[in-house]
Amino acid sequence: MSLESVLETVRTRVVPDESDVRAFEAAVEELTGRALAAISSLPVEADTKLVGSTARGTWLAGDRDIDLFVRFPPELDREKLERYGLEVGYAVLPDGHEEFAEHPYVKGEIRGFDVDCVPCYAVEDATEIRSAVDRTPFHTAYLEGRIDPLADDVRIAKAFLSAIGAYGSNLRTRGFSGYLTELLVLEYGGFRQLIEAAAEWNPPVRLDPEDHGERSFDDSLVVIDPTDPERNVAAVCSPRNVARVIHYARKLLESPRLELFEPRTLDPLSAADVRTLVEARGATPVAVRFETPDIVDDQLYPQLEKSLDGLEDALERAGFRPLRSTCFAREDAALLVECTVSKLPAVARHQGPPVGVKDHAEGFYETYRDDEEVTGPFIDDDGRYVVERARSDRTPAEFVRSSLFDVSLGPHIESALSEGNDVLAGEEITALADQFGAELAAYFDPVP
Amino acid sequence: MSLESVLETVRTRVVPDESDVRAFEAAVEELTGRALAAISSLPVEADTKLVGSTARGTWLAGDRDIDLFVRFPPELDREKLERYGLEVGYAVLPDGHEEFAEHPYVKGEIRGFDVDCVPCYAVEDATEIRSAVDRTPFHTAYLEGRIDPLADDVRIAKAFLSAIGAYGSNLRTRGFSGYLTELLVLEYGGFRQLIEAAAEWNPPVRLDPEDHGERSFDDSLVVIDPTDPERNVAAVCSPRNVARVIHYARKLLESPRLELFEPRTLDPLSAADVRTLVEARGATPVAVRFETPDIVDDQLYPQLEKSLDGLEDALERAGFRPLRSTCFAREDAALLVECTVSKLPAVARHQGPPVGVKDHAEGFYETYRDDEEVTGPFIDDDGRYVVERARSDRTPAEFVRSSLFDVSLGPHIESALSEGNDVLAGEEITALADQFGAELAAYFDPVP
Repeated sequence: MSLESVLETVRTRVVPDESDVRAFEAAVEELTGRALAAISSLPVEADTKLVGSTARGTWLAGDRDIDLFVRFPPELDREKLERYGLEVGYAVLPDGHEEFAEHPYVKGEIRGFDVDCVPCYAVEDATEIRSAVDRTPFHTAYLEGRIDPLADDVRIAKAFLSAIGAYGSNLRTRGFSGYLTELLVLEYGGFRQLIEAAAEWNPPVRLDPEDHGERSFDDSLVVIDPTDPERNVAAVCSPRNVARVIHYARKLLESPRLELFEPRTLDPLSAADVRTLVEARGATPVAVRFETPDIVDDQLYPQLEKSLDGLEDALERAGFRPLRSTCFAREDAALLVECTVSKLPAVARHQGPPVGVKDHAEGFYETYRDDEEVTGPFIDDDGRYVVERARSDRTPAEFVRSSLFDVSLGPHIESALSEGNDVLAGEEITALADQFGAELAAYFDPVP
Repeated sequence: MSLESVLETVRTRVVPDESDVRAFEAAVEELTGRALAAISSLPVEADTKLVGSTARGTWLAGDRDIDLFVRFPPELDREKLERYGLEVGYAVLPDGHEEFAEHPYVKGEIRGFDVDCVPCYAVEDATEIRSAVDRTPFHTAYLEGRIDPLADDVRIAKAFLSAIGAYGSNLRTRGFSGYLTELLVLEYGGFRQLIEAAAEWNPPVRLDPEDHGERSFDDSLVVIDPTDPERNVAAVCSPRNVARVIHYARKLLESPRLELFEPRTLDPLSAADVRTLVEARGATPVAVRFETPDIVDDQLYPQLEKSLDGLEDALERAGFRPLRSTCFAREDAALLVECTVSKLPAVARHQGPPVGVKDHAEGFYETYRDDEEVTGPFIDDDGRYVVERARSDRTPAEFVRSSLFDVSLGPHIESALSEGNDVLAGEEITALADQFGAELAAYFDPVP
């Protein structure tokens, strides 16, 4: 199949049809009307701004999200902004409910569309924003008049990124935001051109569409925000997601096919499947399962990752040599680390100072000289004192049970763990299949 | 017990009595007479020189070694030196036999003394020596007239170094030579002063009695040869032996006792003892046993050490994490490594290049993409390809069996191993107790 015909097929899938567009426009008209009516009864000036992919005409067929921003003067104090914002929000979405990002805002439904009605400050320049949401209207303004001819290419790019798991700037995915996708398509002049470029990327990759960036960034992908020279639009993208885009861009050029635009589906593993895999791999998995703390995903996943890193580092330092790890969250959450080492000796080498460093050396020697429990002190080939001490935790599970709270954990994870946790070792991790069969399927059969 | 009374007791043990001295003098007289008679019938000039501890009056009671050097003019070609040397040797020691150091020489017995009669060149200056033996007479000449008042202190120092296992510059011991011991006692002005200084040593330690050294050395202890500014007399001393001297010097000053002048004696371990210890330590020992190659100790031990290092490094790289190791040699020899890891998973992580490094990355990916045996390729957090491959050697013993000859081995050890070897793992090392019970006792109960 040629790349052209693949992309043409994808295009028909992702571009909304005429009736969708009309339904969207009608919803926007009604929303805006309601909002302006509510604004007119406020004691301050304000206007509305449609933002996001719907505003920019780059939404995917089937997307039903509308983001309506209500812009207040920068002089307005924050408390009033929030109050007026909610007032307008509930006027627009009478059946809506309050949610919280940087400010509280109202979320609700109108004509089958999911609407976020978000207050922000109407600052003059994106570099002067007072909170992250103030930035969004600048992005939309920048893309207006530029992105229109490439709207379908943006849709194709989003479908591609979604399928490979790299779309979304939330802190679980750490992928490509809609705005970043739009900038990349714009910068390279189309989806095909983006893919051809990405196939050659060798991170760190730096793009600066407006050629106004001054500072440097440590990130794998750097795209200087056209509306703010100080900001990397791709800051949240993980190196892994950037590498994925490179990998799948090459695969798409190499042999174009529709499957590259379709998310991978895997059958969940059963407990028996997990047992077979644990046995075949011959590693020593250890998992901690606990109740998922009630926090939003953008808090939860970074804390899970931090906790998993902490656990993995501690297992490494303790000598259990992690092989691979992952974390899951549904009703329960789990940190899972497969260890290379199943059981350590009863003794652990403990190296002291060089014998010649008198005070330290004598202190070390005196500590252990009469200790019946240790082997040594003796002197190693480099002239240092050494003892072999009893080791308390010989298996990964023993170690996790004794040292879990010495590990660097996310604060909400730490609280959740102290409410209660199960440490599962070896084949006991089959108990995870119940909730996490799909996640385990992906873990045991990883793809780029 | 005071240090004085300890040293006084040691002195009575190590100083030879009057009759020993007379017997020695008579033997030397006879030897020298015979040598000079033999020399007078040679077509070249030559003289004799008594060297070593007997020459310097620093030999220990019970020592029965005499080193008689025969010095030939430096113009003499090597072949003639060897021929004349053996001629004189056999004249002096008619029942002697030929041995080989740098030249062939004759070893034999006279009046109950073991005599080495060694030919050398009578060079003008120690820096002009043609072979290592030419240096020895300079050492003796330097000490003559200096060491006499300290001869007993030298004897005490030798007894101390012997007891702690640090006496002898052979390549098995890698300790302190007689000459080095004499220089140290001379430099510090006595045994007690040497011990007081050594207790404060913090290697690297550098001494230069004649203050003429110019170059630097990497060794733990550096004593510039008074007869050769280019040479470190302590070059062969291992950092461990230097540290031992420091350690036991402190112990001797802290609580003076005769035991510090008596070698440690240990009951050999039985097979049952070894089994108990292997179990208690919970490590995974692996040993290779083979027939000891027929080479001198100064060749054998460096080759054993090199082979042991090679084996330990290879086990480390393979993931078995050596805990401690040793080597033994009697009729058989053995390399023994205790490993921390008893069994590795069936899969091993194999990290590829960053996905962005196109040629390498594509090569890696293509190698494994259709390989049913591997997990992956997938992309890690840093954006590199990774696969998990099957691992062939999961235990230290499997690894040693399959990879012994990929290890960096001493050449004679390699030949001996290829004649035949046994790999012993876990409790199988009890089979070593038969020959190496004493060595295993020291290994499992190490002291400084």
